[in-house]
Amino acid sequence: MMIIMNTDAEQKQVDKVVKKVKALGFDPHIVDGEERTVVGVGGNNPFIATQGHFSRMPGVDRILPISRPYKLCSREFIPEDSSFPLDGIHIGGRGIVIIAGPCAVEDRGLLLEIAHAIKEAGAHALRGGAFKPRTSPYSFQGHGEKALKWLAEAREASGLPIVTEAMSIEQIKLVAEYADVIQIGARNMQNYSLLHAAGASQHPVLLKRGMSSTVEELLMAAEYILSHDNRRVILCERGIRTFERSTRNTTDINAIPVLKSLTHLPVILDPSHATGNWKYVTAVARAGIAAGADGLIVEVHTEPENALSDGFQSLKPERFAAMVTQIRNIAQAIDRDIAASTHADPAAK
Amino acid sequence: MMIIMNTDAEQKQVDKVVKKVKALGFDPHIVDGEERTVVGVGGNNPFIATQGHFSRMPGVDRILPISRPYKLCSREFIPEDSSFPLDGIHIGGRGIVIIAGPCAVEDRGLLLEIAHAIKEAGAHALRGGAFKPRTSPYSFQGHGEKALKWLAEAREASGLPIVTEAMSIEQIKLVAEYADVIQIGARNMQNYSLLHAAGASQHPVLLKRGMSSTVEELLMAAEYILSHDNRRVILCERGIRTFERSTRNTTDINAIPVLKSLTHLPVILDPSHATGNWKYVTAVARAGIAAGADGLIVEVHTEPENALSDGFQSLKPERFAAMVTQIRNIAQAIDRDIAASTHADPAAK
Amino acid sequence: MMIIMNTDAEQKQVDKVVKKVKALGFDPHIVDGEERTVVGVGGNNPFIATQGHFSRMPGVDRILPISRPYKLCSREFIPEDSSFPLDGIHIGGRGIVIIAGPCAVEDRGLLLEIAHAIKEAGAHALRGGAFKPRTSPYSFQGHGEKALKWLAEAREASGLPIVTEAMSIEQIKLVAEYADVIQIGARNMQNYSLLHAAGASQHPVLLKRGMSSTVEELLMAAEYILSHDNRRVILCERGIRTFERSTRNTTDINAIPVLKSLTHLPVILDPSHATGNWKYVTAVARAGIAAGADGLIVEVHTEPENALSDGFQSLKPERFAAMVTQIRNIAQAIDRDIAASTHADPAAK
Amino acid sequence: MMIIMNTDAEQKQVDKVVKKVKALGFDPHIVDGEERTVVGVGGNNPFIATQGHFSRMPGVDRILPISRPYKLCSREFIPEDSSFPLDGIHIGGRGIVIIAGPCAVEDRGLLLEIAHAIKEAGAHALRGGAFKPRTSPYSFQGHGEKALKWLAEAREASGLPIVTEAMSIEQIKLVAEYADVIQIGARNMQNYSLLHAAGASQHPVLLKRGMSSTVEELLMAAEYILSHDNRRVILCERGIRTFERSTRNTTDINAIPVLKSLTHLPVILDPSHATGNWKYVTAVARAGIAAGADGLIVEVHTEPENALSDGFQSLKPERFAAMVTQIRNIAQAIDRDIAASTHADPAAK
Repeated sequence: MMIIMNTDAEQKQVDKVVKKVKALGFDPHIVDGEERTVVGVGGNNPFIATQGHFSRMPGVDRILPISRPYKLCSREFIPEDSSFPLDGIHIGGRGIVIIAGPCAVEDRGLLLEIAHAIKEAGAHALRGGAFKPRTSPYSFQGHGEKALKWLAEAREASGLPIVTEAMSIEQIKLVAEYADVIQIGARNMQNYSLLHAAGASQHPVLLKRGMSSTVEELLMAAEYILSHDNRRVILCERGIRTFERSTRNTTDINAIPVLKSLTHLPVILDPSHATGNWKYVTAVARAGIAAGADGLIVEVHTEPENALSDGFQSLKPERFAAMVTQIRNIAQAIDRDIAASTHADPAAK
Repeated sequence: MMIIMNTDAEQKQVDKVVKKVKALGFDPHIVDGEERTVVGVGGNNPFIATQGHFSRMPGVDRILPISRPYKLCSREFIPEDSSFPLDGIHIGGRGIVIIAGPCAVEDRGLLLEIAHAIKEAGAHALRGGAFKPRTSPYSFQGHGEKALKWLAEAREASGLPIVTEAMSIEQIKLVAEYADVIQIGARNMQNYSLLHAAGASQHPVLLKRGMSSTVEELLMAAEYILSHDNRRVILCERGIRTFERSTRNTTDINAIPVLKSLTHLPVILDPSHATGNWKYVTAVARAGIAAGADGLIVEVHTEPENALSDGFQSLKPERFAAMVTQIRNIAQAIDRDIAASTHADPAAK
Repeated sequence: MMIIMNTDAEQKQVDKVVKKVKALGFDPHIVDGEERTVVGVGGNNPFIATQGHFSRMPGVDRILPISRPYKLCSREFIPEDSSFPLDGIHIGGRGIVIIAGPCAVEDRGLLLEIAHAIKEAGAHALRGGAFKPRTSPYSFQGHGEKALKWLAEAREASGLPIVTEAMSIEQIKLVAEYADVIQIGARNMQNYSLLHAAGASQHPVLLKRGMSSTVEELLMAAEYILSHDNRRVILCERGIRTFERSTRNTTDINAIPVLKSLTHLPVILDPSHATGNWKYVTAVARAGIAAGADGLIVEVHTEPENALSDGFQSLKPERFAAMVTQIRNIAQAIDRDIAASTHADPAAK
Repeated sequence: MMIIMNTDAEQKQVDKVVKKVKALGFDPHIVDGEERTVVGVGGNNPFIATQGHFSRMPGVDRILPISRPYKLCSREFIPEDSSFPLDGIHIGGRGIVIIAGPCAVEDRGLLLEIAHAIKEAGAHALRGGAFKPRTSPYSFQGHGEKALKWLAEAREASGLPIVTEAMSIEQIKLVAEYADVIQIGARNMQNYSLLHAAGASQHPVLLKRGMSSTVEELLMAAEYILSHDNRRVILCERGIRTFERSTRNTTDINAIPVLKSLTHLPVILDPSHATGNWKYVTAVARAGIAAGADGLIVEVHTEPENALSDGFQSLKPERFAAMVTQIRNIAQAIDRDIAASTHADPAAK
């Protein structure tokens, strides 16, 4: 922590600051510039606990933190990439993992149809919402537990592990019963009660970046989950909110290499929400893998024109299959590949 | 809803769109421009339900909604200002209501001290967090139910009604037992499970705008609460996230007159979070009232330098009292006034 | 300047940094935290000149500047408010100055009509564009020098000093011949050739904040002008670009007290561009004065429905007159007042 | 253009609007919704010219434009990709073009050294600033015409065509004398005088997106140049300003496929400014090509630690050469390739 004094701070004001630093048990280091004095404070992360003591002292201009506020998810704490197995596939390794499926689970038959189609096209896991966060209370809100049962059935039929969202503490328990990965949605990225519950569940968690959350805040949210000793966390960039309106969100492609350098956790991209338009999904999916992402989560629907939500950004299975082919080419161009899937094909039993 | 055709759309593509509009039971209206054709769709708010049907049809460029997506909170639904009594004061009328108190409830004695100080300075209600949403899992998270009991005690002692935040469905019930107003924080503005629970509680709700939520999304979040027939909702502008970093957030002062024109609900401003710096709180509080806000919620602390959170943006009681005086002057300059408080002074009993 | 080392930096890496600091002639100060080491660099503003030397050295995490990059426009350089006389009025003093007029100068007769109307309503200066920056090359681009002559005529007739925009170095000379204040528009705030020319002109300059410029960048742009020893600069907040679309821009009301605390220069608000909607102009104008602005620049048009640009955000004279009355009330509520105008009324000659 | 009436608009208000549409010579089309009425206006792009007539009429809620405001640069106007030869290479075709060089031209010898290094690594053109836009008036502002002469010399020596920025109308003429492509920088994207001059020069133009300009505004800026019948325009995404601060800007990767779908002009990416950090440049360059960009402009410096500007985001030649190899792999993975260069190698003469 650095305490920046005003340019016209008096010596006795500096002295008082130094005295207070010592009184709190830290080491003061005085840096005299021609323009102003800075008091460096040594010791263990004193910023959060002590900034309040200094920020209002006479002669103090502002306080600068030095340490990063997250620990367990940092590369400084765990230098090598984290990875974990998930029902026959491996999340976070050299292989690119592709999660696909409808925005919302709308109908049992349709879900099975989509599951088979994405499996065929090369997907590794099935996504689909049972509980849907919707801007309008008048929009379709999801089929709830019934949809979870359909998802479990689709897993049986296709062999694909399931990723689905939980929006409240109660739903965490329910989702953990049926699904392989609990998704925390963008709107709940700073719902700390939910993060604690997801951490405590000891279930794998797919954590989506909030639409106006910084990379650092995403890592702090992950820290909530990791603080429960649950280290199976996947981070997901899904576009941020900016002034640009030609797409639904702005894909923060920089966040991919930035996250990969700051954290050991696997990082995936959701090109469907990040663009909001099926026409741009494939191009941005390619960009994500080229930038170093470990996987993708993509909306696929066999009848997007009739989808109850997000139809406009869903790919049809043929187009999704073409995307997987292109992703494989891009992955190989950077010495990676599409993840191998070792889970038994239920159809082959 | 307007269906905008491509400039090179063929007549038979337009015909198919028109046919589909009719098939769905709506009235098509063809607007031929020199450059392109637009198909207007009459009928009751068909955008949400039907855009998916058209957005992928050949020849269609994009779809524009026409209707506003909220209803119960709109001025078009209820033209006159909503207002409701709250323990001796009136929220949403001509009188400006001032809610004040510490960011977090830290200590029983300190809370009582602050409650008396703000009462004396002219505040109408006491705020203070029992459950604290914190970016870091390692920061102080609030004293929970113990803090709620202290708040109830402070109400007894000062006569001030209590505003405090609930972060989960369980907390809604607990907070409703102790407090007069349930606060939904900025990070939970799109936590729809929580909004439903707050609506169902039939308790007054102070709904803070999400830090990157649009005015329309704030109104949609309010719509969740009103859809439970709970109309005692106060909207709160608290600053939005922008590229500017000289203040913690950017106060969207435009939102005050915009909200007042779109909705009948009372609108207040939180100048403490909106600036993040006690030096700017008073100036921005004045601006909020001058712009037409119905009240303020302000962080006040007797020892901000020792506050466990947000000390840097808290006013000391003397400065808060000076702010109230200035707010009274501004209110009178626009033919309003500080709200009269009719609740009995417990000290006078 | 602070050089933040990596948490795993080796001692010899720290030593090399320290050696380089000394080699460049600055004083190194080592601050050892438990987590990492920071090397403080004393001396005169070494950040800009030397950061490149350190940012790529092994073991260095990042570099933090300490000094503010502007000087001449800072309060630390000149503590008291700057103010200067302008043809009978005083810019930057206790009195609130109101500049008004059409977006573009469209017609001689109309301009004279508007000039008289705003004079009557209480305005102190006349604005109007001769050269118009327009997003589309197909939009009306202004009447150029002809419009400058009409403005000069309107000054003769009304006694109001003239504010008008220059968009290129040549226009600076031309505008300086006819007008009292040269306006630098938001889109040109970082057009450094233009800023140098405006500074060199020794003419008063009204500098508008770029729509996505930070407060610090606005001050740096002003520094360009002041570096030519031209200290008659007025800063103007005119709204910034954010994700919110219910108004044309987002008024950064925080910027008013922030600028007033960082700089001695006068600060005014343009509520017309900051909202883009005449319905919100008066409320936001009141907010600006309540927040501490020294003046306003407002679009007024006698026939806004026929205006060639910005008609939607222009006030009609009656509404402008009502706004001036409200601004006077707000000014008096904070112990200021509308500026007195001492320039002789030409009509009275 | 669509005129949206209020929900409570009276029939006679609708009638007046319809009458005015007719009076202005356009075709009104009435769309009656259950909630409100919309009046569609047919005819040739009436939005810009006529919105002012309607926006203030009683009963009118708001006006929606339908047409896109640009024409010459749209795919609807010219469906196939534009491309043009540039001194032996081809801009805008199947081949990826790579422009590289220092931020600023600092020294003759250094420039020649860099030119040879990037040529060897596979670059197609040399960039380097003679006139530098700098936030601070106290920073290095470029060597001006002297630097232009060095650039011309470097072209002679390396055979690489030259790209360099002009910041004012006078500089346009000067730059056109020495360079092959005139760059318009981000800060000047809406400097319309400069855009007109660049168009009139009939020289190829590299137009950088403003840091807070929308894709539509970028296209409108290009339209200024094309309106002079100068069609040799290259668009450049270089990152936009958002709330995220872990990188200097946020690369708007979505803008690549969006621009490619809206315009026929070639689109390139500047990963150096878009990230501001050499560590992320290669990953984001790969992403840009994977997303469909036609080229890159990258900062390369042989001694970035001593660079007078932007050293932190410059690649060293070895790293740049590695980047070119990776870009070739990515290009081939999507059925493109690095552009072939047919210009004679001066060294081979």
